[in-house]
Amino acid sequence: MTDRFTGVITPLLTPYNDDSSIAFDLYLDHAAGCLADGAHYLSPFGTTSEALSHSVRERIDALEKLVENGVARADQLMPGTGLCNLEETLTLSRHAVELGCAAVMTLPPFFFVKASDEGLYRYFSQLIEGVGSDALRICLYNIPQNTGIAVSPALAGRLNDAFPEVVVAYKDSSGDWDNTKAVIEAAPGISVFPGSESVMMRAMALGGGGCISASCNTNVAGIRALYDTLRAGDDEGAKALAPQIDAHRDAVQAGGLIPGLKGLKARQTGDARWLNLRAPLMPADPALAGPLADTLARL
Amino acid sequence: MTDRFTGVITPLLTPYNDDSSIAFDLYLDHAAGCLADGAHYLSPFGTTSEALSHSVRERIDALEKLVENGVARADQLMPGTGLCNLEETLTLSRHAVELGCAAVMTLPPFFFVKASDEGLYRYFSQLIEGVGSDALRICLYNIPQNTGIAVSPALAGRLNDAFPEVVVAYKDSSGDWDNTKAVIEAAPGISVFPGSESVMMRAMALGGGGCISASCNTNVAGIRALYDTLRAGDDEGAKALAPQIDAHRDAVQAGGLIPGLKGLKARQTGDARWLNLRAPLMPADPALAGPLADTLARL
Repeated sequence: MTDRFTGVITPLLTPYNDDSSIAFDLYLDHAAGCLADGAHYLSPFGTTSEALSHSVRERIDALEKLVENGVARADQLMPGTGLCNLEETLTLSRHAVELGCAAVMTLPPFFFVKASDEGLYRYFSQLIEGVGSDALRICLYNIPQNTGIAVSPALAGRLNDAFPEVVVAYKDSSGDWDNTKAVIEAAPGISVFPGSESVMMRAMALGGGGCISASCNTNVAGIRALYDTLRAGDDEGAKALAPQIDAHRDAVQAGGLIPGLKGLKARQTGDARWLNLRAPLMPADPALAGPLADTLARL
Repeated sequence: MTDRFTGVITPLLTPYNDDSSIAFDLYLDHAAGCLADGAHYLSPFGTTSEALSHSVRERIDALEKLVENGVARADQLMPGTGLCNLEETLTLSRHAVELGCAAVMTLPPFFFVKASDEGLYRYFSQLIEGVGSDALRICLYNIPQNTGIAVSPALAGRLNDAFPEVVVAYKDSSGDWDNTKAVIEAAPGISVFPGSESVMMRAMALGGGGCISASCNTNVAGIRALYDTLRAGDDEGAKALAPQIDAHRDAVQAGGLIPGLKGLKARQTGDARWLNLRAPLMPADPALAGPLADTLARL
């Protein structure tokens, strides 16, 4: 990657039919809408996508459907590919590379919460060597509150040093600004994406890549406007945009993030299937979707 | 299951060749040895087995090899089947039922660390209905230090009430005796297996089922003797056996549990492949295996 990997990236919600299968009609419409509203990339199968509630087969199928139906070009996609085991992480990552995806977003092997940085380095090295393609680009995915194990700034720096053309990005969903800042400093070759637009301004001021945020599912136009304003160096303009964006995020988060986003989509599309989440998560409460939509309409 | 599910259960180590594939020659020998030394059941693909470092395909294959090679009868097996997603957990659980396994040992869908008991109940209900077989027996697998989410005593009780013929056991690897005791009290229909032989005496006194312990890989004869002594009501005999058993466990734990067990197996068998662990874990240190074997020889 000669150009630095930057932009506003939507970790795509996954809508379900009432039998819990993926509702592809809603999925493709939603993906198309996010791109039309300004997302640079889509990231199917992040945490907001309920990624870990899907089989390998379902993930491969959904990714292909986005491309085959002409909703997204493969180079607009950065699918999540990280599982606990190397074989299936390789399967997903190879598939994404063969499809022509821009990058893959890869969790550390969770469950192994006591693994050392040395062990994680060993794992990611085996992944990179296993894929064995010059086209592979990896965005390390740090979300220790769910995985129980962090991708440390030192590990990110070491991986970027060893594989500068491959390990090119880091998504930080820790919500810990000190960590975000430490990765930017420890791995200057890496594009760091905070998991929230609320710190995008601070991150981009230090060289961060943009953001990969759940609320890009419902407010990507606003977030893209903020991004463009920051890229243009218009800090005053950015400050003017921030309150609407923060208020949107706060409102969705108050709805429980995924249920909040899905409730809002149900309200906006009039399709109650958007209320479905897979177990162990619970369906979104339609009674909350109305007030949420009203709150956002006032913004 | 008319009889209560009880016994000493070995969560089977998984040995690897130097290319990280499963070393089936060592695996089958080890499984046969555990049964010959007194294990009532084998549990392939628990945490000690590095379960989450294996693909669905590898787990199915290994289970079939144990049966096809005549090493274990299917009704001596309780494989781990719990992943984060329902579809692949169903695949593994259905396969185990079709093979004729005694039970399956199932993690809650980890990664979803904020899931409610209601959400977990929904998940396990969908699993049980999805397998749709009277032959299904589930051992709930509680290891919150790795999964980030506990199977609460109340949830165990509720599942046993709703599915009394299916949800018949609970493995408690939390190391929290208060939780073990609370499950025995909240779910009297369930057979509770502590994850350590060190509390087997206390658990069995309250009606617990035995134990499922990592050290059954290297000390199953000793643990079986303790179990038989407790079943015979010989508390004095049990107290006499306990120090050797606790010392064995302490020594293996000091070696880092899985690396400790594998290091000891490498020393005992003279086969250095036993030192291999899959990333993100690191290989066992052969320099520690010698002193560990010497410590155990002195016991």
